[in-house]
Amino acid sequence: MDYKKMLVNDHVKPYLLKARYGIEKESKRVDLSGNLAKTDHPKSISQQDDHPYIQRDFSELQMELITPVTDTLNELFDYLAAIHDVAYRSMGENEMLWPLSMPPQLPEKDEDIVMAKLKSAENVRYRQSLSNSYGRRKQMLCGVHFNFEFGDELIQALFNAQSEIKEYQHFKTEIYLKATRNYLHYRWLVTYFYGASPRSEKNFFEENLLNEVVRSIRSSKYGYTNSKDVQVSYSSIQNYVSDLSSMVKRGLLSAEREFYSPVRLRGGHHVSELEDNGIRYIELRNIDLNPFETYGISYEQAEFLHLFLIYLLWKDEGENSDEWVKIGECYNDIVALEHPLEHTQFEKEAKKMIDEMKHLATILNLTISDTLFVHLKEMLMDPSKTLAGRLFEESEKCSQRQLATSIAKENYKKSWDKPYQLAGFTDMELSTQILMFDAIQQGIQVEILDRQDQFLKLKLKEHVEYVKNGNMTSKDNYVSTLIMENKTVTKKILQQHGFRVPKGKEFQTIEQALRSYDLFSSKPFVVKPKTTNYGLGISIFKEGSNYEDYQKAIILAFKEDSSILVEEFLKGTEYRFFVLDDRVKAVLLRVPANVKGDGKHTIEELVMQKNRNPLRGRDHRTPLEIIQLGELENLMLKAQGYQVNSIPKMDEIIFLRENSNISTGGDSINVTDLIPDDYKKIAVDAVASLGAKICGIDLIIENGNKNAYGIIEANFNPSMYMHIYPYKGETRRLTMHIIHYLFPELLHSQSN
Amino acid sequence: MDYKKMLVNDHVKPYLLKARYGIEKESKRVDLSGNLAKTDHPKSISQQDDHPYIQRDFSELQMELITPVTDTLNELFDYLAAIHDVAYRSMGENEMLWPLSMPPQLPEKDEDIVMAKLKSAENVRYRQSLSNSYGRRKQMLCGVHFNFEFGDELIQALFNAQSEIKEYQHFKTEIYLKATRNYLHYRWLVTYFYGASPRSEKNFFEENLLNEVVRSIRSSKYGYTNSKDVQVSYSSIQNYVSDLSSMVKRGLLSAEREFYSPVRLRGGHHVSELEDNGIRYIELRNIDLNPFETYGISYEQAEFLHLFLIYLLWKDEGENSDEWVKIGECYNDIVALEHPLEHTQFEKEAKKMIDEMKHLATILNLTISDTLFVHLKEMLMDPSKTLAGRLFEESEKCSQRQLATSIAKENYKKSWDKPYQLAGFTDMELSTQILMFDAIQQGIQVEILDRQDQFLKLKLKEHVEYVKNGNMTSKDNYVSTLIMENKTVTKKILQQHGFRVPKGKEFQTIEQALRSYDLFSSKPFVVKPKTTNYGLGISIFKEGSNYEDYQKAIILAFKEDSSILVEEFLKGTEYRFFVLDDRVKAVLLRVPANVKGDGKHTIEELVMQKNRNPLRGRDHRTPLEIIQLGELENLMLKAQGYQVNSIPKMDEIIFLRENSNISTGGDSINVTDLIPDDYKKIAVDAVASLGAKICGIDLIIENGNKNAYGIIEANFNPSMYMHIYPYKGETRRLTMHIIHYLFPELLHSQSN
Repeated sequence: MDYKKMLVNDHVKPYLLKARYGIEKESKRVDLSGNLAKTDHPKSISQQDDHPYIQRDFSELQMELITPVTDTLNELFDYLAAIHDVAYRSMGENEMLWPLSMPPQLPEKDEDIVMAKLKSAENVRYRQSLSNSYGRRKQMLCGVHFNFEFGDELIQALFNAQSEIKEYQHFKTEIYLKATRNYLHYRWLVTYFYGASPRSEKNFFEENLLNEVVRSIRSSKYGYTNSKDVQVSYSSIQNYVSDLSSMVKRGLLSAEREFYSPVRLRGGHHVSELEDNGIRYIELRNIDLNPFETYGISYEQAEFLHLFLIYLLWKDEGENSDEWVKIGECYNDIVALEHPLEHTQFEKEAKKMIDEMKHLATILNLTISDTLFVHLKEMLMDPSKTLAGRLFEESEKCSQRQLATSIAKENYKKSWDKPYQLAGFTDMELSTQILMFDAIQQGIQVEILDRQDQFLKLKLKEHVEYVKNGNMTSKDNYVSTLIMENKTVTKKILQQHGFRVPKGKEFQTIEQALRSYDLFSSKPFVVKPKTTNYGLGISIFKEGSNYEDYQKAIILAFKEDSSILVEEFLKGTEYRFFVLDDRVKAVLLRVPANVKGDGKHTIEELVMQKNRNPLRGRDHRTPLEIIQLGELENLMLKAQGYQVNSIPKMDEIIFLRENSNISTGGDSINVTDLIPDDYKKIAVDAVASLGAKICGIDLIIENGNKNAYGIIEANFNPSMYMHIYPYKGETRRLTMHIIHYLFPELLHSQSN
Repeated sequence: MDYKKMLVNDHVKPYLLKARYGIEKESKRVDLSGNLAKTDHPKSISQQDDHPYIQRDFSELQMELITPVTDTLNELFDYLAAIHDVAYRSMGENEMLWPLSMPPQLPEKDEDIVMAKLKSAENVRYRQSLSNSYGRRKQMLCGVHFNFEFGDELIQALFNAQSEIKEYQHFKTEIYLKATRNYLHYRWLVTYFYGASPRSEKNFFEENLLNEVVRSIRSSKYGYTNSKDVQVSYSSIQNYVSDLSSMVKRGLLSAEREFYSPVRLRGGHHVSELEDNGIRYIELRNIDLNPFETYGISYEQAEFLHLFLIYLLWKDEGENSDEWVKIGECYNDIVALEHPLEHTQFEKEAKKMIDEMKHLATILNLTISDTLFVHLKEMLMDPSKTLAGRLFEESEKCSQRQLATSIAKENYKKSWDKPYQLAGFTDMELSTQILMFDAIQQGIQVEILDRQDQFLKLKLKEHVEYVKNGNMTSKDNYVSTLIMENKTVTKKILQQHGFRVPKGKEFQTIEQALRSYDLFSSKPFVVKPKTTNYGLGISIFKEGSNYEDYQKAIILAFKEDSSILVEEFLKGTEYRFFVLDDRVKAVLLRVPANVKGDGKHTIEELVMQKNRNPLRGRDHRTPLEIIQLGELENLMLKAQGYQVNSIPKMDEIIFLRENSNISTGGDSINVTDLIPDDYKKIAVDAVASLGAKICGIDLIIENGNKNAYGIIEANFNPSMYMHIYPYKGETRRLTMHIIHYLFPELLHSQSN
């Protein structure tokens, strides 16, 4: 087939970069000094053997982080970051991930390396057989596996651009076989640029097998390879499958999955299915951990691999395919064992290939990072810029162990810095980020259906749940949320069920409202737009009001909405009850933005101090908001006889806002355990009367007056993060409650 | 107690007009010639004995229409109108309601008057005993019962404005007793103004008992009264209760409910409960049907009664209360038996009372219709303007029977004129009106929680369901509606479940969209804003497109929304499938606005003709919309080589619009039975995959190509009226399906 012609076909071009990706990345858990962890896999991570994101590899302390399959590299790296965040913060504060492919110092005795404590007997047996054949030390090597699939539309377009092969699946398999053979032949280029295992730590080799410093121990013959007798042909899928099965039959491999080729052909659960299904994607396994990247591989590396595979499709291959592959192995071993600062023996060839790739990218109109080729050329000219070169040079300043430990610590800090965030998805709503964190931890597959819209698909085995904005779910019925959306309807229904709500009337015109002045004038009352929005248009009259002020308030409210409410004003303190499935899961007191005097600092300084709390930020992307000193705050200070440069007395509390919204700098205080059960029962019963399952209901409780309460509002998409990261008091992990409510089988399986 | 002082108290005044109302109105069913109907109570009306709105009175052909209790007179009359509409259209097209209190010609034999065929044995027994005591003819009198309750806040304020009575319930009872005694004394005034039974038709009296024409047979001693021996004191609640129970014990009444006082005291199911509960409201029973009002009583009459009761509270009463009441009976009998055109004997007294009422209304700041006192004075000066006077004078021109028949026919026509509307609630959404109609018919209590918001509470016995916009209910789960609200998410989920949806991409920027030109250019595709709005910003390219036109379309779409979709364009015809609870209940074809030529008329004339269809109107208050001849229609005509004054050939169809929305004059065609089951299964399965229970799903079906379909959209609040009143084809009563879905017990009880 004329690949060159096919690739430049106009019907093929639009789809050239269409692909699907996946990454598996192994890392060892170490303590904060860089010693192998002695602990079990973290309990907070669901222990299922087939956890979709976080598994154990050979050893109990070897974490394998697995991204889902994605359609873009951006998404791929978002998930990789997120899964790292979950892994880090699930391990707890005494552990971190080792950033190198080569393990840190190993125990002297092989058997002191603890095998993964998996549930499935077969998985345990398999690890035992590996231990017997290769020893446990070799199993401690870590790396990145890069799963790659050409887009369906691309293969379809290529198929249509030729006429030699009539059968689509056959064609597809041929595409992957060509790319694979060329990859095996030319993989020394990857080893040159991205090899990153120049030397071993103590006890990795039983004897001093390798004393030189190299580019990549892991990719060399000293890495994790099968015995020399294991030979598998890539000339056709039939040969590949039959060779593999004969290796197993002859006992050279304990199972097909023991075949450690740098490229694995994938098409089903078992290799035998490849013959029926054809190749669906390939797994590149020869990638060392990139120690300079928090997540072990850079975006640019992935982009390179993608482009490299297209280039390898385009590039001619040798006629004898088995020989072609075999030569590749030799070349790679040469490059892998070169000194990291040495120019490679294949420099000229490499330069030619990079030029060809660049040319190809131009003629095919491929959109790739501007800097990719700049960096590749730099690395080619200057070996100290390759990963192995950099790692070697920096290790020389101290030791590889020290370097790795300090890199690990930086990654560790980064993950703990803002523990409420989920790396990769920090543009999303905070509650959704926390929910995704918990879902990943629990082994629930998280798919983002609409990122701007915070729309998730959660999947646990065959059980699917959709969630929007963190807690809009299938558990609530539709009309019940519509009830809560309408204050008048909510009040009517609560009242019909015997709950205390502020008495009041709805008005559609100013005239109507004015005519009812007599009904409200003499008691405390509040005037507000039917749809409120951060307190705009609200007037409170705690002692009743004269006609003029009433009129002004009415006009003000009508500026915000076409309907307004005039209501009895209830005295007391307002609490937010978070009710889930007929239980109060959290109660929060929200206090208006304030500072506490120390007799020394000005109000402005106290605000600055308070704002330094890492929980405070902007735009609902942190659990608390920065306290402002704007017009409203200055007015409020003035009313109390203060200015921004006044110095409040020791322990004096200065309020900067009338309203207690967290969004305007208010403090959130968890009071769940302080609230009497009577009120919790009222909250639960009131929510039930609205037919709601997930609800934030606001009660005014009159201090000291038992059973004097009023229900102000019921919210169908209540904020969760303010309960999870309160300013004061214990956390209430509401996102986890939501997950357990949606997937009760999780609790069930845990109690088994 | 000094009622005068209490009423002018400033704390009382704001609440003076607060009250609750209810109306019961009896009417006989007649055929279109004005003869008593021979049919049973309509089958379409739920047959329960305790139907909340439509019951049978003594006879099977006597309908009793009952409003719910309301807080305003406006609401009261809205319900009265609505219940009439349901009664009319449930009886079918061969019957109507007799507008007079006096029955039309009765059968010669008493036993030919058919008693109500009720389920409860006790109800049947009671009617048999009435038949025995009074004869069946007397039972055929009809009237209005006006239930009246002073507002709670009013009674509370009055209670606080005095100190004589310490106990609230006792005070409340005294209030009602005073009003009742004065009403019984002065009720002749009501008889003068609103009496409306001047003469009887054949066979009402067994002998020619009364030959004169009078003001009100029904309110006179010839009406429906107990025997003279039945005497009950209103001096205190204790006396009232003990007198009544002694009448029953002595056999003068078969039951307490046989006591036919013009005012009944109400406080519980049984009279005996009055002593414990006190009086809760009173029932005025001496109101003749007003033949000149479609619903038997006018708003002004109700206003008069309300004001009259306040006036009677204010007005002094006689010292001996039993005598005071007894004198009232004599006065009333005198006025009732005066000739309708004769000035009343009590004219002077009446004039004084009306002046007092007017004065009272002024000093108490009561807001009432400007015309009330004008009309009262007119009637006082000119007896021919009273109801009895008018009825007598108009009957003289033909006969009372003819007059009543023609009035009945007008009412009948009015109800059938726009059968899709529900009188009283025509400001509401059409689907909600139809749903309310069906609910009332089925005996479900309908409460409007928010009229602007189309928010209903439906109640059947203890079962409550809330409904917004006709079909937003508790049956759908929240996230499923959120899925449907988001086109991208809907498509993803449908696709993941294996359904065919147009392939496409979402873009947030023009640049992104332009970069993907190659993906779409060569095939049919459509560019549209993510949130569509009556077709704005949509461009269709049936043959693919060049780059310039693609760019224009992208820019156009971004003018309507911040996200746009570019999608494969599917060829075929679009159908709307209405799916309810996993079944297709209706399939509709929507055809763009069009006219059919007759070879004679111009397009403009044909449009006018087509618009005469009473189904066509404006603003979604009719099942179809008026076809416009605006800019878009003219452009469309021009493109086809026509103008508005062109004359299309016989049977030529001229389309006036590209889009098929009913809202722009499109035709709705029911095709439910024509669509193959395969497609119905696809619709049902697709809706199920979204987790939806009530959904309007749009399928494009390629004509003649089996299984070639695509799903365009899923709507969570699909319009119903267009299926119920289609332009062509059978009706599909979706509102009734919704009601049976919400209240399955209705089907259950029907099958029993």
